[in-house]
Amino acid sequence: MKDPGLYEAHLRGDSTDVLVVEEPLEIRVDSVPLSVLMRTPGEDLDLAAGFLASEGVVDGLDDLAALAHCPDPNVPNAGNIVLATLQSGIRLDPSRFERARRTTYSSSGCGLCGKASIEQLFLDAPPLERRLDLDPDLVAELPEKLRAAQPRFGATGGLHGVALFTAAGELLCAREDVGRHNAVDKVLGARLRADHWPLAETVLVTSSRAGFEIVQKALVARVGALAAVGAASSLAHDLAVAGQMALYTFVRGGRFNEHA
Amino acid sequence: MKDPGLYEAHLRGDSTDVLVVEEPLEIRVDSVPLSVLMRTPGEDLDLAAGFLASEGVVDGLDDLAALAHCPDPNVPNAGNIVLATLQSGIRLDPSRFERARRTTYSSSGCGLCGKASIEQLFLDAPPLERRLDLDPDLVAELPEKLRAAQPRFGATGGLHGVALFTAAGELLCAREDVGRHNAVDKVLGARLRADHWPLAETVLVTSSRAGFEIVQKALVARVGALAAVGAASSLAHDLAVAGQMALYTFVRGGRFNEHA
Repeated sequence: MKDPGLYEAHLRGDSTDVLVVEEPLEIRVDSVPLSVLMRTPGEDLDLAAGFLASEGVVDGLDDLAALAHCPDPNVPNAGNIVLATLQSGIRLDPSRFERARRTTYSSSGCGLCGKASIEQLFLDAPPLERRLDLDPDLVAELPEKLRAAQPRFGATGGLHGVALFTAAGELLCAREDVGRHNAVDKVLGARLRADHWPLAETVLVTSSRAGFEIVQKALVARVGALAAVGAASSLAHDLAVAGQMALYTFVRGGRFNEHA
Repeated sequence: MKDPGLYEAHLRGDSTDVLVVEEPLEIRVDSVPLSVLMRTPGEDLDLAAGFLASEGVVDGLDDLAALAHCPDPNVPNAGNIVLATLQSGIRLDPSRFERARRTTYSSSGCGLCGKASIEQLFLDAPPLERRLDLDPDLVAELPEKLRAAQPRFGATGGLHGVALFTAAGELLCAREDVGRHNAVDKVLGARLRADHWPLAETVLVTSSRAGFEIVQKALVARVGALAAVGAASSLAHDLAVAGQMALYTFVRGGRFNEHA
């Protein structure tokens, strides 16, 4: 099996099952270890670039001087380490990085609630200037278009798919990962690395749910609309509405909810 | 609407949809802010207790002197802050805490790969002493039993359900959350707070997938078997097999995969 993202596992009864690969990836910025993501290998530079951009560490491709796997053959598992080098003059702002990482301590001791989380995010990523409204027929077709762009769809049940489309429904990029946030970051990072950033007037489509962090990443990227096959959380709804991002959920079987 | 976990959101066209609530919860240990989890409010003390135990910060109820919401009415959103106080003599070991948090920097610079992640975990939570094998008919029935124990199942499409059963299939505890890791921690924490810890010879059932972190939390709790409605990742499979934990995936429609 050549695909680095798939793994053949032994089951009881001498059968096997194809599983999605999950391995840690460490991202270092200017030699400072920033984060370890549990990801599906294969598009690590897209993932790292997207993570750095959607978490507000870099504002665009110009902020990055270099991005590569660890080149030192003496470092064990160098393929699981990506080194990002910022342009001289760009400094890593740990507070800005920490702000967006919901699983670690946020220094904003006061106002720890959904409303405060949204207001804090708007300091760095203000609401979109206008709401992008899509043709309902186009929205309804997005999950099928996403599926058609997922090469490994069906191989395992453990891969999340995410794709970016123009407002006219033209596919720009699609990626898969064991983690739904990673799949978003891979798509955003692929566009950033192709120097398409920010992503105004585009539609991000996810095969899974829309939580706060997904909407947050989309807003930082200035994506105009988010369409999810699954549900939204309360905070994802509130952020999308306040951020003027069009949000479509439960997009299945030709129907969907449009949040307002 | 009285349920703090549900939220009625406005949709376009004057309709509404019931969403799962997502709000940040900060956990502080001996006044040190440790983590912010995006969770569904309602069972915060279970969540905090389970998180502290499954991440290796405490070894059991005896390590906890107190666990409560922030009691200071002058602190904004005190209901989103849980204070844990360790028994005197128990010290917070930051490296141990950091070890288990996959989204933050792991100090184990060397050997950053799945195999190393498993070996590192085994230092604190060794493999189970023997493999717990369940009656196949019982395994097949677990998702239905879980669903019957989810009061909010069907209200939204955004809630993950997790339940703990005896090896004979008797329900011990069930919880729901917007995050699947949180739902696991709520179940583990409820048992810990009832002074049932560790959880040997029990079966943890999740409505979602089995990733590395879910198996890790189950292993730390000494759960004997994990049954998931969804898929396993490669690393979840490897950890369960090496840890002698029975792992059943795609448990649906009377069938399942048994990992070996």
